[in-house]
Amino acid sequence: MEFKATDIASFLNGEVVGDGNVKVSGVSKIEEGQPGTLSFLANPKYENYIYNTSSSIVLVNRTFKPKSEVKATLIKVDDAYQAFASLLDLYMQAKQNTRKGIESPVSIHETATIETDVYIGAFASIGRNVKVGKGSKIFPQVFIGDNVSVGENCIFYAGVKVYDDSVIGNDCILHSGTVIGSDGFGFAPQEDGTYKKIPQIGNVILEDNVEIGANTAIDCGTFGSTIIRKGAKIDNLVQIAHNCEIGENTVIAGQTGMAGTTKVGKNCKFAGQVGLAGHLTIGNNVQIGAQSGVSKSIKDNEIVLSSPAVNYREAIKTYTIIRNLPKLREELIQLQKDVESLKLAKNAGSK
Amino acid sequence: MEFKATDIASFLNGEVVGDGNVKVSGVSKIEEGQPGTLSFLANPKYENYIYNTSSSIVLVNRTFKPKSEVKATLIKVDDAYQAFASLLDLYMQAKQNTRKGIESPVSIHETATIETDVYIGAFASIGRNVKVGKGSKIFPQVFIGDNVSVGENCIFYAGVKVYDDSVIGNDCILHSGTVIGSDGFGFAPQEDGTYKKIPQIGNVILEDNVEIGANTAIDCGTFGSTIIRKGAKIDNLVQIAHNCEIGENTVIAGQTGMAGTTKVGKNCKFAGQVGLAGHLTIGNNVQIGAQSGVSKSIKDNEIVLSSPAVNYREAIKTYTIIRNLPKLREELIQLQKDVESLKLAKNAGSK
Amino acid sequence: MEFKATDIASFLNGEVVGDGNVKVSGVSKIEEGQPGTLSFLANPKYENYIYNTSSSIVLVNRTFKPKSEVKATLIKVDDAYQAFASLLDLYMQAKQNTRKGIESPVSIHETATIETDVYIGAFASIGRNVKVGKGSKIFPQVFIGDNVSVGENCIFYAGVKVYDDSVIGNDCILHSGTVIGSDGFGFAPQEDGTYKKIPQIGNVILEDNVEIGANTAIDCGTFGSTIIRKGAKIDNLVQIAHNCEIGENTVIAGQTGMAGTTKVGKNCKFAGQVGLAGHLTIGNNVQIGAQSGVSKSIKDNEIVLSSPAVNYREAIKTYTIIRNLPKLREELIQLQKDVESLKLAKNAGSK
Repeated sequence: MEFKATDIASFLNGEVVGDGNVKVSGVSKIEEGQPGTLSFLANPKYENYIYNTSSSIVLVNRTFKPKSEVKATLIKVDDAYQAFASLLDLYMQAKQNTRKGIESPVSIHETATIETDVYIGAFASIGRNVKVGKGSKIFPQVFIGDNVSVGENCIFYAGVKVYDDSVIGNDCILHSGTVIGSDGFGFAPQEDGTYKKIPQIGNVILEDNVEIGANTAIDCGTFGSTIIRKGAKIDNLVQIAHNCEIGENTVIAGQTGMAGTTKVGKNCKFAGQVGLAGHLTIGNNVQIGAQSGVSKSIKDNEIVLSSPAVNYREAIKTYTIIRNLPKLREELIQLQKDVESLKLAKNAGSK
Repeated sequence: MEFKATDIASFLNGEVVGDGNVKVSGVSKIEEGQPGTLSFLANPKYENYIYNTSSSIVLVNRTFKPKSEVKATLIKVDDAYQAFASLLDLYMQAKQNTRKGIESPVSIHETATIETDVYIGAFASIGRNVKVGKGSKIFPQVFIGDNVSVGENCIFYAGVKVYDDSVIGNDCILHSGTVIGSDGFGFAPQEDGTYKKIPQIGNVILEDNVEIGANTAIDCGTFGSTIIRKGAKIDNLVQIAHNCEIGENTVIAGQTGMAGTTKVGKNCKFAGQVGLAGHLTIGNNVQIGAQSGVSKSIKDNEIVLSSPAVNYREAIKTYTIIRNLPKLREELIQLQKDVESLKLAKNAGSK
Repeated sequence: MEFKATDIASFLNGEVVGDGNVKVSGVSKIEEGQPGTLSFLANPKYENYIYNTSSSIVLVNRTFKPKSEVKATLIKVDDAYQAFASLLDLYMQAKQNTRKGIESPVSIHETATIETDVYIGAFASIGRNVKVGKGSKIFPQVFIGDNVSVGENCIFYAGVKVYDDSVIGNDCILHSGTVIGSDGFGFAPQEDGTYKKIPQIGNVILEDNVEIGANTAIDCGTFGSTIIRKGAKIDNLVQIAHNCEIGENTVIAGQTGMAGTTKVGKNCKFAGQVGLAGHLTIGNNVQIGAQSGVSKSIKDNEIVLSSPAVNYREAIKTYTIIRNLPKLREELIQLQKDVESLKLAKNAGSK
């Protein structure tokens, strides 16, 4: 898709300075500008770049007055950053709108209900009693099991797999390879050393506005539900076990995993590769540093780090001492020598 | 699916106390009971819940005598827990049985052999000389490469990918997104710094009764086989490299990974996010704590923890000291002062 | 596929010693030889095995003179190891060549360009303006989004998902379940605690000769590109975030993850389960030990280990002290006692 400077200016209520016929088909950072792309200048710290950028168009604030010649076409707007953000949103919408209608072949059970403005890509499989809400986009090769409810304006990218009975809210985005509702990892040990599968008959509930990255796995509840509350964002390759609950607006980075029945509060931030044991309660506003191993429940507002995880101040203090352990060891050896010679002196003195 | 109290009682050889016409469509824990669900009471510790539960039906032992009024319909059976478990099994079977026959379109090579009572979902691709045993269920969008043998009563959930030459036993369950038989990660370094791919011509063998979670990857042998022995259970997002062997009834939790040619014994339990180096031998009945890093072989019956992993008692002892390092450091500083003043005193005394 | 000893010898310019009519259908290590397989003997250390191996054919150097009777058919060649490697290559090519042409049904947009000798498996979905280069193999159930360019002689195994605008070089191999170009994990915090998605409009570029394992996720750039340079090899279940760059011939083992905008140099080697923070610069020839946590940039040629990662010599030194902390603690307690009795003696002496 190509856009002309005058059309962009008109959309943004902006004013063109320079060649209004210049066209762009993408965006770039002003400091890495490429011909055919649009950049923005909001932070005055970056002003120097505008005089040399190869970007074809630069959005600037109306107050901007160039100190020397600018090669690029300028579009002056009230707030260059906001204008840029709204262009990006527009671009994303335009891009999504290339996917419409129902491709062929698809496999949609006769009992499924598909609302208006839904996109269903080729080779999608949609089961019994499924409901897909208005405006949702189901990409090719997606699987939706029986009795699944999908809200409005969701995007399931290619190859997403959703097991039976899952409930997906509005405005959810699931990236390719993500699996929703696989069986919890539950087996009863038998006397002969084998394991008997414990039936996993619960489901997964995703509330509104949840986004989940690529190749993440969220198991269903053993009974009851695994729940991801509204606004939560989960990255790639994350493992959420049976009956976990993730609170509103909690953000979980890549490759983090948690064992069964752990409840996480609202507005938490977990960095990458964190591990949490099962049956924990993590409060609201908790932050967990990368690669931490959490084996105990955590109260509201705590920031923890390390494996096993402790308060981050304590963790940093301990790290500092650990890094200096070789020196500490030497000091101890020196002390041993000193004490030895003091003992010798004492013994000599007491003779 | 809805079930009436009298029908459930008749299936369980149980006795209804209360309204036999009550219907349930799911189960819940007695302490979290919901109308329209069935619970059980086996452990007397939970007895108090029965007087307030909102569950519509509760399974109880024949010996149970309520101390006050119970709102729910009771079904009295010989063993409430066993009865509940058998109901769950029945429920799961009923659910599986909704998937039957061969959907359309599928791509099945003319040389493939599909036994009776097999379900094959839409958009499944089944290669040359494949055998699928009696009663197995191949969900939509599954890929089965050439020369793969699949036993009886297996379930491959939607989107499972099985590379050429894999051998899958009876009663195996593979969850969505799992990949069986991808190439081992083997490259020969060349003089110019590039790598030449080492052909990976082995396969993967899964013995009977193996269950593998979602988005797990099991590489084929470089030559020979990567083998998962009977009854082993592997969770989500696990990495098993080329030529590994996992022993009978060994259980591996989510996001654990192991490098090539490591052999794991029987009846082991690995917690989540464990890493094992290549070419190790792990004995029988070994337990490995979460996030441990195993760089050496481990003998039978050992319990290890930490990274690098050591005996768990040693690991816990070391953790305790590490947590107290700030205090230890202060004690050392105090000692240095004491020794310094003793030295001063000695020197003063010897003048 | 079966091959006769005389045919193999003729392909390798080798000389048959023994029964030239023996056939093999696979390979095995000489020490684990099976009837119907071919082995090789290159390293004299393994010579003893040749007298008892059950392999049907063994490749040996022309200089090899058996010390006693050998049951297997020998094929004498200039370099047994090289000959074996070239047989494996031939075997792999023969195997790949069973997949040809365009299966049915597939979904290929009318604007896509498919060059000659391309294999496209059933249920593949190929978008607008896609180019697939000569000789590439697109397995069943692969998804290729709009405007993607795929070079020559690539292999995308079953179920690979490639998002819009990705650029894939020549001779790339992507294993099943791998996702290329999913959205970067970028959200702007709002005043009410919710997050607003930051549009991810960049792409992923894979240069030539890149191999990526199963179930790996590589996010697109937020703007600009996430780049995997030529010859890089990435294992299973790896997470590469938005705008990362992986240098030429760098090798990354399973379950490693890196946060956004981290740049990795050439010829690096990362072991498994490594984590890297965002916005780091990792030099050339850097080696990172398994499970390390990298929070700072690393210079060329460094070898690091541990979490947080430090120079490996320092890490090993620190580990050794940590393992001996219980002993160090005891020594400290002994010192405290010694000092206490010295103080008592001093006080007694000074009375």
